[in-house]
Amino acid sequence: MTTDLLIHREDLDFLLYDVLDSAALAQRPRYADHNRATFDAAIDAAHRLASQYFAPHNRISDENEPQFDGQTVKTLPAVGEAVRAFAQGGFLAATHDYELGGMQLPVTISQSCLALFRAANVGSSAYCFLTAANANLIRAFGSDEQKWRFLPPLLDGRWLGTMALTEPDAGSSVPDLRSTAMPLPDGRYAIKGQKIFISGGDHDISENIVHLVLAKTPSAPAGAKGLSLFIVPKRRVDMDGKVTDSNDVALAGLIHKMGYRGTTSTMLSFGENDACIGELVGETGQGLRYMFHMMNEARIGVGMGATMLAYTGYRHALAYAKERRQGRLPGNGDPSSPPVTIIEHADVRRMLLTQKCYAEGALSLCLYAARLVDDEKTHPDAAQREQTAQLLALLIPIVKSWPARYGLAANDLAIQVHGGYGYTREYPVEQFYRDNRLNAIHEGTHGIQALDLLNRKAGMKEGQAFARLHQRVLDTVGRAKHSGNPDLAENATKLEHAWQELHETTQTLLRAVRVDPISGSANAAYYLDLFGHHVVAWLWLWQATAADAQLAKRPHLGDFYRGKLAACDWFFSTELALTSPVHVLLRQGEQHALRTEVEWL
Amino acid sequence: MTTDLLIHREDLDFLLYDVLDSAALAQRPRYADHNRATFDAAIDAAHRLASQYFAPHNRISDENEPQFDGQTVKTLPAVGEAVRAFAQGGFLAATHDYELGGMQLPVTISQSCLALFRAANVGSSAYCFLTAANANLIRAFGSDEQKWRFLPPLLDGRWLGTMALTEPDAGSSVPDLRSTAMPLPDGRYAIKGQKIFISGGDHDISENIVHLVLAKTPSAPAGAKGLSLFIVPKRRVDMDGKVTDSNDVALAGLIHKMGYRGTTSTMLSFGENDACIGELVGETGQGLRYMFHMMNEARIGVGMGATMLAYTGYRHALAYAKERRQGRLPGNGDPSSPPVTIIEHADVRRMLLTQKCYAEGALSLCLYAARLVDDEKTHPDAAQREQTAQLLALLIPIVKSWPARYGLAANDLAIQVHGGYGYTREYPVEQFYRDNRLNAIHEGTHGIQALDLLNRKAGMKEGQAFARLHQRVLDTVGRAKHSGNPDLAENATKLEHAWQELHETTQTLLRAVRVDPISGSANAAYYLDLFGHHVVAWLWLWQATAADAQLAKRPHLGDFYRGKLAACDWFFSTELALTSPVHVLLRQGEQHALRTEVEWL
Repeated sequence: MTTDLLIHREDLDFLLYDVLDSAALAQRPRYADHNRATFDAAIDAAHRLASQYFAPHNRISDENEPQFDGQTVKTLPAVGEAVRAFAQGGFLAATHDYELGGMQLPVTISQSCLALFRAANVGSSAYCFLTAANANLIRAFGSDEQKWRFLPPLLDGRWLGTMALTEPDAGSSVPDLRSTAMPLPDGRYAIKGQKIFISGGDHDISENIVHLVLAKTPSAPAGAKGLSLFIVPKRRVDMDGKVTDSNDVALAGLIHKMGYRGTTSTMLSFGENDACIGELVGETGQGLRYMFHMMNEARIGVGMGATMLAYTGYRHALAYAKERRQGRLPGNGDPSSPPVTIIEHADVRRMLLTQKCYAEGALSLCLYAARLVDDEKTHPDAAQREQTAQLLALLIPIVKSWPARYGLAANDLAIQVHGGYGYTREYPVEQFYRDNRLNAIHEGTHGIQALDLLNRKAGMKEGQAFARLHQRVLDTVGRAKHSGNPDLAENATKLEHAWQELHETTQTLLRAVRVDPISGSANAAYYLDLFGHHVVAWLWLWQATAADAQLAKRPHLGDFYRGKLAACDWFFSTELALTSPVHVLLRQGEQHALRTEVEWL
Repeated sequence: MTTDLLIHREDLDFLLYDVLDSAALAQRPRYADHNRATFDAAIDAAHRLASQYFAPHNRISDENEPQFDGQTVKTLPAVGEAVRAFAQGGFLAATHDYELGGMQLPVTISQSCLALFRAANVGSSAYCFLTAANANLIRAFGSDEQKWRFLPPLLDGRWLGTMALTEPDAGSSVPDLRSTAMPLPDGRYAIKGQKIFISGGDHDISENIVHLVLAKTPSAPAGAKGLSLFIVPKRRVDMDGKVTDSNDVALAGLIHKMGYRGTTSTMLSFGENDACIGELVGETGQGLRYMFHMMNEARIGVGMGATMLAYTGYRHALAYAKERRQGRLPGNGDPSSPPVTIIEHADVRRMLLTQKCYAEGALSLCLYAARLVDDEKTHPDAAQREQTAQLLALLIPIVKSWPARYGLAANDLAIQVHGGYGYTREYPVEQFYRDNRLNAIHEGTHGIQALDLLNRKAGMKEGQAFARLHQRVLDTVGRAKHSGNPDLAENATKLEHAWQELHETTQTLLRAVRVDPISGSANAAYYLDLFGHHVVAWLWLWQATAADAQLAKRPHLGDFYRGKLAACDWFFSTELALTSPVHVLLRQGEQHALRTEVEWL
């Protein structure tokens, strides 16, 4: 796999520096030791490791799923080597403090690094991301003693981590979790219960596996408020941080997935022999709150995974379309004329440009969200931090779901560009498509994200968050109108109008939800999609305006900038234009589905 | 797998008899021995065989692809048993004359029978369909002696057949085929060349495999006109019809696909040792014409395959949604209240109703096309036969592509209804989705179908075919307006308007194609999709009007008929309504993709 297929580095640089002004982050005290050169060095290092350790076994681990041999779940040696290379490269602690062994990188840069691993191999990199999320939770809410015992081995990759939330009867419904935690005399807890879909739940990669488990303590209230968070290692860890004996965490089964096959997915049984011991993290009853603390970054991670699968798929399709010769252009009936490269066919060009819009649009969305996380954490102005937190909360359901849906659509087009070959496992686009299908499901399905957006986020703080986002859109509109480029000005006018429509549709829906939350939110999935297209159209206008400004300054990148302008035009004249009847559907409160009785289906 | 999951038999009966008036076919001389009872008996038999021989190993053959053991390609014994049961049931010759051992069934009924095998197992049934297509070609164009030698063993399943068109450098571009056929002194030909993506190209199911191969004779003109069709068996067949020695057809490799894994897909090498002998079918230079003779039914077959995957996927999702309990309705914050079945959630209801619209809409489309084939062949009026042929030609690109695209979308929703379970190979919806992804590619990709529709079919015979289809739509509109049901009348008005728009858009595009075929057809893919939605909206209004008429007569099927009315309303108020801006895009002659230079991508 050549460099070019993982990412278009000029594009990443453009987004980070020309669009998102990430170099300015180095002015913040937390990032004072950094500058663009150190950011780029981190990305270069990630690129090298991703190419060297992750990409080569992506197909191999898809074809050779982890297997249970009766004792343990066996993975390919290359997976463990990759995870250790990732840890040794410092990426598990990329954003952590220096004194904790971290690189103290901005989230924007850290996510850019991680993007490369995702593009190279989503299956193997998932072990790393789960471990990082696990360590982040322990760092944020664990006791000093827990941090001292668990963080070093997690951050150097000797132990790996999981997040064990879901149970067989409570997939999207956290309040219905039934695992229990009974207090023991020594302050620890006896854990008992079944968990399902636990990624990385069992394997032979590391010396130990640290599960973070949501469970209920006795006499806890029903529902989400009764959940607490526990550290439950596969093998017990004594007070000196040494791994001792088995902790009664049993593999109840492996789950075989459509894609993401390199990541083992497990059913786990905790405390079958009443010998599973967990340690409480923080306070009882706070488990879900702790988990939610990490939710934004987890959901950005899902969006970024979907994005990078779309991105590398697009790069593969582009390379193929430039090489593959077939057919002739319409109007040429001479069969003795040589076939053209398929990129010359209008429909192939359309499929490539659409993929570019989806993949690069999604990347701008995810990086923008990461940039908001940095502002939320390190902006010098407290009011700005608060405002940024609201913006981020509003955008998160879109960051999670838009790349999952349209990234998959991009992968579908990448297959189509390859024709029959794209349907075979001999070409990587086939795997990208299967891998990407997961992203509409985990970390909250589309349906869950849609309800989060409409019923919680769109109206929060009396609509302040929406208004702030709208203002940012109008700022971009203003810049585009003053660019002197009439195409940009025309798109700016379209965007201004589209967002006014979105504002009005949102108001209508919020009123409807207040009157009746069930019928009012019945079309939330359409709203989620519509909102997403409006956000991505804004980011495309932003990208195009930035590209237009650079065009005169850096003519050697002229093709690249013209590509951004062309993609923006395409997105506006097709994708955004096609959304207009959705406003009508939503404002009319379309109810046919809700009124359809079960027996009629 | 219960009956209900393969097909909703009331729905099939409704489409066949209440909508398409298929019982009337028995009045035609060819079908004079038939009546509704014999039609139903054939469908019942197909249902039994599909359930007994095909469904049980659908997942097993997905998980155990055919393997080359160095000598032959090994398949599961269940595959051969299923193929033989299909043949012994008479389904290979379902539409053939009685005197050739056929059942002389109408195509509409035969396709209904085959639909059940497709729903049960697309992988294994493909061997049957390829063999039937192969035998149909030999029956139509072979010499009496070829028919005598090849048809009996093909029709009783002792030998299986393939269609060997595609070559590595000429996927969608038939004129670039390079395989050659050199005349031998005895009137036969020496065949030489490589073929790729040959389904059923090698296996251990049957005693022999009869390939139908497109190849060029010496001094044949360049392009499609130079192609001839040859019978090339894997093992030679002597003049008495006995299988003799090997015919120098070598397996060059197996192709490993995303889905459809039960059907082996091969690269074949003909005449590596200059010892591959073929027999000309019919006349030289007519190969492509012969193939095209079968193209309509082959493309209906692809549409039907896509449809039945969507259909069975919907039935699985529906059954799951009625059983699975999870979460509570919006507005209910009481975690101690019992979870509801997920079909109560508005978004799940939406996903089910959308699947119903796609699956049942696609089934009506494919059966309508089959009904046209019957009229084309057996209508007593010659002018009607000719008109029907035109209608069919116009609709074929839609019959091939609409179910492939929206059937896949239905399967995507079936997964989503299942949540995390839907992404696992433990649930059948995962396989349906992978299987269905093929259908946008084989028998002409979406892009090829789009060009066929716009550049050939939409304007053919000075627009007569379009006008005839439009008139049939207006007939349905008239019936709906006079039904006395105001909802139907409202949808009828919408449809009338939508078709007027489609007519105008078509005129605009045809003018643009005449001026410049390249830019004029640049958005053909959007047109194909738009046209498809207009056709399916028509068929939904037709179904709804028929259901409305039955509602009073058969109140015990009230839920079923109300479901048809609800699906029609939903299709009109969402799917059809959302297409309106596509007319604008097409009439404006959107050219951004075409103007995007290769270097900008």
